[in-house]
Amino acid sequence: MDIKQLDEFAKEIIFEAGKNIRAAFSYNIEIETKSNPNDLVTNIDRETELFFIEKIKAFNPDHRILGEEGMGETVNNLKGVVWIIDPIDGTMNFVKQHRHFMITIGVYVDGVGVLGYIFDVMREDLFNAIAGEGAWYNDSPLRKLQPVKIEEAVIGINANWVTPNTRINHEKIIELVQTVRGTRSYGSAAMEIAFVVSGKLDAYMSMRLAPWDIGGGVIIAKEVGAIATNLDGKDFDYLSKDTFLIANPSIHQLILDKYIEEKK
Amino acid sequence: MDIKQLDEFAKEIIFEAGKNIRAAFSYNIEIETKSNPNDLVTNIDRETELFFIEKIKAFNPDHRILGEEGMGETVNNLKGVVWIIDPIDGTMNFVKQHRHFMITIGVYVDGVGVLGYIFDVMREDLFNAIAGEGAWYNDSPLRKLQPVKIEEAVIGINANWVTPNTRINHEKIIELVQTVRGTRSYGSAAMEIAFVVSGKLDAYMSMRLAPWDIGGGVIIAKEVGAIATNLDGKDFDYLSKDTFLIANPSIHQLILDKYIEEKK
Repeated sequence: MDIKQLDEFAKEIIFEAGKNIRAAFSYNIEIETKSNPNDLVTNIDRETELFFIEKIKAFNPDHRILGEEGMGETVNNLKGVVWIIDPIDGTMNFVKQHRHFMITIGVYVDGVGVLGYIFDVMREDLFNAIAGEGAWYNDSPLRKLQPVKIEEAVIGINANWVTPNTRINHEKIIELVQTVRGTRSYGSAAMEIAFVVSGKLDAYMSMRLAPWDIGGGVIIAKEVGAIATNLDGKDFDYLSKDTFLIANPSIHQLILDKYIEEKK
Repeated sequence: MDIKQLDEFAKEIIFEAGKNIRAAFSYNIEIETKSNPNDLVTNIDRETELFFIEKIKAFNPDHRILGEEGMGETVNNLKGVVWIIDPIDGTMNFVKQHRHFMITIGVYVDGVGVLGYIFDVMREDLFNAIAGEGAWYNDSPLRKLQPVKIEEAVIGINANWVTPNTRINHEKIIELVQTVRGTRSYGSAAMEIAFVVSGKLDAYMSMRLAPWDIGGGVIIAKEVGAIATNLDGKDFDYLSKDTFLIANPSIHQLILDKYIEEKK
């Protein structure tokens, strides 16, 4: 497989999709809810996913697509080439803020990540990686992450995990929030992952993410030395939903050991 | 006083300061700490405040400047024309993220706000208002805020206020976080205020802000119908530090009544 050619193609369709999404603000965006009233989807999410599916199938009909909106085929394994796609990560931001939403894509070959992309559609900012070759931010190389002390870390975490919940002991998260230098929350997992791989945040965690939220980001993570696992410290389960922690390597294990206590 | 002329002048120096700050990323930024290890200041914060002071004094030596870095004269009252300036709101973002920091300015005449500005330096996005005449986002009129239900609100709040603290009952804030549609935290009060006045957030609160954090924003708030008070529901104290809540008018009183319990 010609990885460079695949990379060029992926960038091309990401930029084209971004252009289409930006243009959508000048016509009607239809909003629906999915699993719950806070889980939004729009016609633009669906149209963008279909756009990717059509382009990829035309490029190579053997490639399969695992997308948030489920408009590709059912994907039960990662054999061959699988594109894991979130057409709009941060749909609530897309609808309400007209910013802070990402296209994110990971390309996997027999389960191994080879190409990763997170594209900030409004800023036209691309974070991407080619496995084993490096990672870039708008074509400038991203540096390996430098060590950070937990007291100087800025971490991405949703305030919900600081409140009593069924998944983790929130008292431990309170300790974490009170230990670090600061916290941020942007409403887009892919945005927070992009910030970790570029050193703008030092960690990001969530108790329930889908493969398309993180599929692009973990490939970029590897190239800059960020560690991305589930909360058991193992690889994220790409065929299901899972917990997730991405962090600077100097604090990843510390966060798992000292501040995460899952309720199982 | 010619308010239009003052407005033109203010915009001119804000855009020029923004250009200088963006250029600063290509030379050395020196970082120091102020009141505590997480309270950062840089040479660029200071140089930018000095830039504003020099420009304003040249424009009219009678105008006084109340700035975050304290490089203007001591201001004990709001008589005459007072510029309330934060040269870089979100210094930690400036240093670590190279984005998400604002120049924010309020111009007050005998204590009454007449001109307000929040400028996203990296996006070159300007939110501004002329009292009684309206508010704009990059020269497009900002609309009056439309009613929102608390269950559909997205609010800006730092995770620290969700943890036990000396200022408010965090148990009530937990209820708030679990009631609303979502929370965000950007690390810049002015950015969160800009998001409220433009409907990208529905509320933002903090337990301890300074006049320069909010002096520009509250003038914009008035023009779009956002309500900005301290947590007693009174006007913010411009000569001290104070608590702060800015919100869509349909939920401001509800948040004060139901979710805020100050420890006094």
